[in-house]
Amino acid sequence: MASSTQGQVITCKAAVAYEPNKPLVIEDVQVALPQAGEVRIKILSTALCHTDHYTWSGKDPEGLFPCILGHEAAGVVESVGEGVTDVQPGDHVIPCYQAECKECKFCKSGKTNLCGKVRSATGAGVMMNDLKSRFSVNGKPIYHFMGTSTFSQYTVVHDVSVAKINPQAPLDKVCLLGCGVPTGLGAVWNTAKVEAGSIVAVFGLGTVGLAVAEGAKAAGASRIIGVDIDSKKFDVAKNFGVTEFVNPKDHDKPIQQVLIDLTDGGVDYSFECIGNVSVMRAALECCHKGWGTSVIVGVAASGQEISTRPFQLVTGRVWKGTAFGGFKSRTQVPWLVEKYLKKEIKVDEYITHNMNLADINEAFHLLHEGGCLRCVLKVQD
Amino acid sequence: MASSTQGQVITCKAAVAYEPNKPLVIEDVQVALPQAGEVRIKILSTALCHTDHYTWSGKDPEGLFPCILGHEAAGVVESVGEGVTDVQPGDHVIPCYQAECKECKFCKSGKTNLCGKVRSATGAGVMMNDLKSRFSVNGKPIYHFMGTSTFSQYTVVHDVSVAKINPQAPLDKVCLLGCGVPTGLGAVWNTAKVEAGSIVAVFGLGTVGLAVAEGAKAAGASRIIGVDIDSKKFDVAKNFGVTEFVNPKDHDKPIQQVLIDLTDGGVDYSFECIGNVSVMRAALECCHKGWGTSVIVGVAASGQEISTRPFQLVTGRVWKGTAFGGFKSRTQVPWLVEKYLKKEIKVDEYITHNMNLADINEAFHLLHEGGCLRCVLKVQD
Ligand SMILES: NC(=O)c1ccc[n+]([C@@H]2O[C@H](COP(=O)([O-])OP(=O)(O)OC[C@H]3O[C@@H](n4cnc5c(N)ncnc54)[C@H](O)[C@@H]3O)[C@@H](O)[C@H]2O)c1
Ligand SMILES: NC(=O)c1ccc[n+]([C@@H]2O[C@H](COP(=O)([O-])OP(=O)(O)OC[C@H]3O[C@@H](n4cnc5c(N)ncnc54)[C@H](O)[C@@H]3O)[C@@H](O)[C@H]2O)c1
Ligand SMILES: [Zn+2]
Ligand SMILES: [Zn+2]
Ligand SMILES: [Zn+2]
Ligand SMILES: [Zn+2]
Repeated sequence: MASSTQGQVITCKAAVAYEPNKPLVIEDVQVALPQAGEVRIKILSTALCHTDHYTWSGKDPEGLFPCILGHEAAGVVESVGEGVTDVQPGDHVIPCYQAECKECKFCKSGKTNLCGKVRSATGAGVMMNDLKSRFSVNGKPIYHFMGTSTFSQYTVVHDVSVAKINPQAPLDKVCLLGCGVPTGLGAVWNTAKVEAGSIVAVFGLGTVGLAVAEGAKAAGASRIIGVDIDSKKFDVAKNFGVTEFVNPKDHDKPIQQVLIDLTDGGVDYSFECIGNVSVMRAALECCHKGWGTSVIVGVAASGQEISTRPFQLVTGRVWKGTAFGGFKSRTQVPWLVEKYLKKEIKVDEYITHNMNLADINEAFHLLHEGGCLRCVLKVQD
Repeated sequence: MASSTQGQVITCKAAVAYEPNKPLVIEDVQVALPQAGEVRIKILSTALCHTDHYTWSGKDPEGLFPCILGHEAAGVVESVGEGVTDVQPGDHVIPCYQAECKECKFCKSGKTNLCGKVRSATGAGVMMNDLKSRFSVNGKPIYHFMGTSTFSQYTVVHDVSVAKINPQAPLDKVCLLGCGVPTGLGAVWNTAKVEAGSIVAVFGLGTVGLAVAEGAKAAGASRIIGVDIDSKKFDVAKNFGVTEFVNPKDHDKPIQQVLIDLTDGGVDYSFECIGNVSVMRAALECCHKGWGTSVIVGVAASGQEISTRPFQLVTGRVWKGTAFGGFKSRTQVPWLVEKYLKKEIKVDEYITHNMNLADINEAFHLLHEGGCLRCVLKVQD
């Protein structure tokens, strides 16, 4: 598929974050040609995630401004740079903030999905090839974000960050497979490896926590206890597999004790899907002595620390964490898309709102309202 | 084998801890008959371990006085109470502070060695059957310790706490298989499951740390980096498999950074064998991103807490702990004795001092001198 934009700088709409905590500005941005090893993607749909909000808020000490946020999206390859062979124009793709080069120490270890190939560049808001940005407004560079920058009609990413998916998948749905849903499912399947019959606790019933519940149900968990300070979450959560609900506000005892009492000694697996370091501690301490495993999924504010008594670990509890649910992005996102097409995993059910790119500031506000799981933006006019 | 003491209260020598931090007193104690499910053991050899010292020092908030300490020992069954079928008088045994009933939720889980059967009683310094002690001096009860109390010529323990071993094993050596050596070996083999080729860091090169090194060598680790503030430890440590030595005092950088630099990104496995919460943090943080696993073996002082940034776990490090190296005591201590007899594991090499029960206060002092690994006491006259 050839397109009239190939070989040309594209001018298109993008939501630019000029300063922390100031409304995003829909701007005409220039998107340069993809260089060697790069892919230019026409983004059709993007969702918003808490990590976008975190960086936008200015709380992320590594946040760079001005930038184009966004990392949960889907689109079509517009053109590719020199040496790119795995995708070609017209391919349907999901940009992946977690790259997979298949060649670095990490990729070859067989033990982790954290590829190291382009990390130094993506962390600095630029592309590997020349350590520069492909985005500009009137000649002034705009930083990339997480190697994805999907709040734009076109973006440029490294080829190791592009998952080619089944073209039959609806892009306005499977964009969610770029972050939150795989993170929750993978935390259960890859990181914790929950077995059938397990008792599971999920702290925080947003998209990530609900995906944990869904993953735990699929793994055959016998009880899935949802914990949230917003009791309204329980009704929705039932559809994702949560069997019991606990609101810490209804109890005087520490929440870890409430769960230990409910489960005759503690849960087999717990997942923190909030980003609150006190809850991370509770999630560890509600685990059963001897084997209970707690997985940190939520991202805490910079500088905050977790703590516990070492006795908790000496008596057999295990403390872990997960990034993108341990999924290898280019290999496994396409597999998740197939599972969705076969109706083996939910995606549509996480989408509570649909808007246009122009409404992005309103969508950001929605993120912090209890009723919103994921808001998907239509990016093209 | 019948003995003249069977069916009678035994009066024998024991080292009684009357008060925290006061010298132990060698006393004539009365050792009552074993009741149902109990075993009376003639102790031939006992070693001293830091846990004895910790409770003696008064820092253990759960310590009970007066008591008879000791938990790393070997002896011969003198008599058994009603219903005891697994051992009989004359059997050579190692008392195990970590019981194994093979029936409780823990034993049946297949996931842990932390048996729950007699814990409430041993924690309270008494026996399950009547929640009383079998030790007394002039009619006044003396508490049991860790369900073993081996600083006595005779002790009474629960049958679930007795490992029957090969009678050919020298009891003045294999007494060490009651605590420190299995803890180190098992931390590597059972808890961390170190694979061939791994890079391992061991913090603290006492008996436990050296046993970790030995276990790592047996597992095929490619590098075993010993870390200790006492540089004299390196000479001995080489014999146990340590390939490189780092003294934190020789470096300005934090020790985790020193190890990360030494290993191009961090170690695959680390073990804290000191009981220092700052070192526990360093041991976690020197692990390689993506997969590094840190095992807490040392026992920290009561009330102390470990902490780190959750990002350490979200980027793939795993934090664990171990008690008695994850070994199932009655099942696996006899197997360790066989391995010793086949010269597959070291034991003699950890014994730096031999003394008599009467010298126990001197032996306690030795524990805190760099040159002492294990001091074995001859308990009978
Ligand atoms: N590790 C990763 O790779 C990864 C990927 C995506 C998202 N995340 C993180 O996962 C977390 C959850 O994301 P989300 O999109 O589901 O967020 P969300 O805001 O939609 O959901 C959080 C839920 O936690 C509840 N909550 C807040 N404080 C609570 C408390 N003290 N006790 C119990 N419940 C509480 C809220 O009511 C809400 O329902 C965020 O921190 C996000 O940054 C991590
Ligand atoms: N988890 C268990 O089941 C279990 C069982 C037995 C012992 N333990 C614990 O294991 C620990 C080690 O026991 P051990 O008998 O080997 O003790 P030890 O005192 O013989 O050895 C400790 C070593 O650590 C070194 N050290 C002290 N501070 C240090 C620091 N800041 N940095 C580097 N090295 C330092 C000392 O020089 C010494 O060589 C103790 O805390 C003990 O209570 C745990
Ligand atoms: Zn996200
Ligand atoms: Zn890679
Ligand atoms: Zn010990
Ligand atoms: Zn048991």
